[in-house]
Amino acid sequence: MSVTKPKGFRASGVTAGFKDSGKSDLALVVNDGPSHAAACVFTSNRCKANPVLWSEEVIKDGEVAAIILNSGGANCYTGAPGFQLTHATAEALATELSISSGDVLVCSTGLIGPLFSADKMLAAVPNVVAALSTDGADAAATAIMTTDTVSKQATYDGPGWSIGAMAKGAGMLAPALATMLIVITTDVDLAPAQLDEALRVACATSFNRLDSDGCQSTNDTVALLASGAAQISPDLAEFTDALSSVCVDIALQLMQDAEGASHDLYITTTHAASEADALEVSRSVARSNLFKCAVFGNDPNWGRVLAAAGTTTAAFEPHQLDVAINGIWVCKDGQGAADPESVDMTPRKCEILIDLKAGDAEVTVWSNDLTHDYVHENSAYST
Amino acid sequence: MSVTKPKGFRASGVTAGFKDSGKSDLALVVNDGPSHAAACVFTSNRCKANPVLWSEEVIKDGEVAAIILNSGGANCYTGAPGFQLTHATAEALATELSISSGDVLVCSTGLIGPLFSADKMLAAVPNVVAALSTDGADAAATAIMTTDTVSKQATYDGPGWSIGAMAKGAGMLAPALATMLIVITTDVDLAPAQLDEALRVACATSFNRLDSDGCQSTNDTVALLASGAAQISPDLAEFTDALSSVCVDIALQLMQDAEGASHDLYITTTHAASEADALEVSRSVARSNLFKCAVFGNDPNWGRVLAAAGTTTAAFEPHQLDVAINGIWVCKDGQGAADPESVDMTPRKCEILIDLKAGDAEVTVWSNDLTHDYVHENSAYST
Repeated sequence: MSVTKPKGFRASGVTAGFKDSGKSDLALVVNDGPSHAAACVFTSNRCKANPVLWSEEVIKDGEVAAIILNSGGANCYTGAPGFQLTHATAEALATELSISSGDVLVCSTGLIGPLFSADKMLAAVPNVVAALSTDGADAAATAIMTTDTVSKQATYDGPGWSIGAMAKGAGMLAPALATMLIVITTDVDLAPAQLDEALRVACATSFNRLDSDGCQSTNDTVALLASGAAQISPDLAEFTDALSSVCVDIALQLMQDAEGASHDLYITTTHAASEADALEVSRSVARSNLFKCAVFGNDPNWGRVLAAAGTTTAAFEPHQLDVAINGIWVCKDGQGAADPESVDMTPRKCEILIDLKAGDAEVTVWSNDLTHDYVHENSAYST
Repeated sequence: MSVTKPKGFRASGVTAGFKDSGKSDLALVVNDGPSHAAACVFTSNRCKANPVLWSEEVIKDGEVAAIILNSGGANCYTGAPGFQLTHATAEALATELSISSGDVLVCSTGLIGPLFSADKMLAAVPNVVAALSTDGADAAATAIMTTDTVSKQATYDGPGWSIGAMAKGAGMLAPALATMLIVITTDVDLAPAQLDEALRVACATSFNRLDSDGCQSTNDTVALLASGAAQISPDLAEFTDALSSVCVDIALQLMQDAEGASHDLYITTTHAASEADALEVSRSVARSNLFKCAVFGNDPNWGRVLAAAGTTTAAFEPHQLDVAINGIWVCKDGQGAADPESVDMTPRKCEILIDLKAGDAEVTVWSNDLTHDYVHENSAYST
């Protein structure tokens, strides 16, 4: 009941046969209106997958009637046949739904390079339409999973309106965005430009603060579809706050299911001169393989935190820095303080706090440790 | 016979007791002149270890008579006692050698945070001086090892003059520099400014193109000491070429002994619009954990190469890129070409070639794969 919680939406998930496992791999979310207002945020990677290239055109008029998503293949670097398949998929779906293909977003996720079967895709389109239902959210959320071990869904209840979201993403998690496909539905009545503004704010403080492994995807898409079926136009700030809370909820679910991770890292930089400084320092720590290996080994290695901070341009005096790990100040004024042995590193949640003593800004970046299982999963993924 | 190969140098290595293993951990290289011209390059990390802060002052007059180096502790983020120990070490050595402490470089390497014993250091200074010998190069090179499995040394024979080098470094290898201590000796007679110019050129095309794990150290120091004992002043361009070849030799030795690595990556970006573009693309691939895990799994995953290239600002058309792995063009014009199964990934040496089709510049960055052993070694290092 995530993406079908708001009024005006149906969803489905079926098996097209792209995955060797035989698990479901094709999802559809349809906006029955009356409004078809929509907004999207796409990966900033310059090497974009074919469905991203297609969807960037579709969203230009701010109208989306349906979004179709497949797992089992990214359709990226597949050349002209890949773009043709994206186009043909949108056309086939448009015909089935009696809508314009120019209102159909397409998303794909999986391995880059190989192209999945066009025949299987086109044969499955009528099936995924036939399966549409107002309680199809779980089926849709399951069909977009790749290495995810659980489906990710979230909802929000506003006064007379609601938001629902589903997501997939477990590896290649980094700004911007975070290797994921996310569909967010709502029954509010807002214009495309308003949805776009709200979505950009929400992404900046949620998905763009998630950096699991520093790798940026070719297929990332966050789509926000508004049906207007609630016949309510909430205050934009109120809606943006609600949307942000849904996006943070989903971002934390992505972190908690990141490939091979044994710790969730909450890396907070506080008393920074600016939000940009705080973000740079937290992200730098989130990118330190050495620190992330140390966390995997339950080692509160604050020296590696400082070494990462030292690579940034943020305003701070190196010898005034404080670092706390799980609430213990292991470094004060640039020197060892509390005994690292006193830090309990066994919980999955690990909180790192870096005090720059340079201002009032604070940012938390979410990440994961670097583990044997991460290496294993990503060394064997395509074989 | 590395750092003592050039005329005018003595070296030694002894056990001061910083390492639990009891292995040697204190090295000394003395320049007996007649010239004491020198140049240094230090880490660009803003969080610098105490010996780096000291040595930055020492090198300002371009004169160095001795360099003392310890393993078993980085003396970084150790506060005032740490800087005082660096100072006291230089003073003690200066007294023993009847030189000025202002001509003594100090280097330390090991864990950040804890401070090694001042008593052990000061007790060992007379011993390391007593052990000085014109064939002490091996002993010195051995005493600076940390997680290195082999000592790194290199030499160059010029007409009537020579260069010798020793290095340590196995983890935290990234620009700039590459988590290492490197001492280079030569008996040429060149002025400090000439040595500085040559050293910066040599570092730019050697150590700064090594990026094993993206992590930047707090202690990196490359010191070049010239005794003038050969009484020859070679052409600066000729000397720079010779110095560069020694630095590349050492950089490749560092790569080949990187912690836990099972592949050495030679990531070449060719036909770039500029050297900066080529460097950015190669370095971006060198920073992709996902690609580096794939190589560990003997998977020629070119999609991850393109995903990394797509995060750069280099001039190229995403859909015109070619990628070869170990000589096989697995991607041509942005699409899969040769069967990845035909790529032999079993050799330790793995060559990645990215053709941007945008110009004439070419750069190779050296890196390693991301392995179980890397995670293991860096999760257990401080415990």
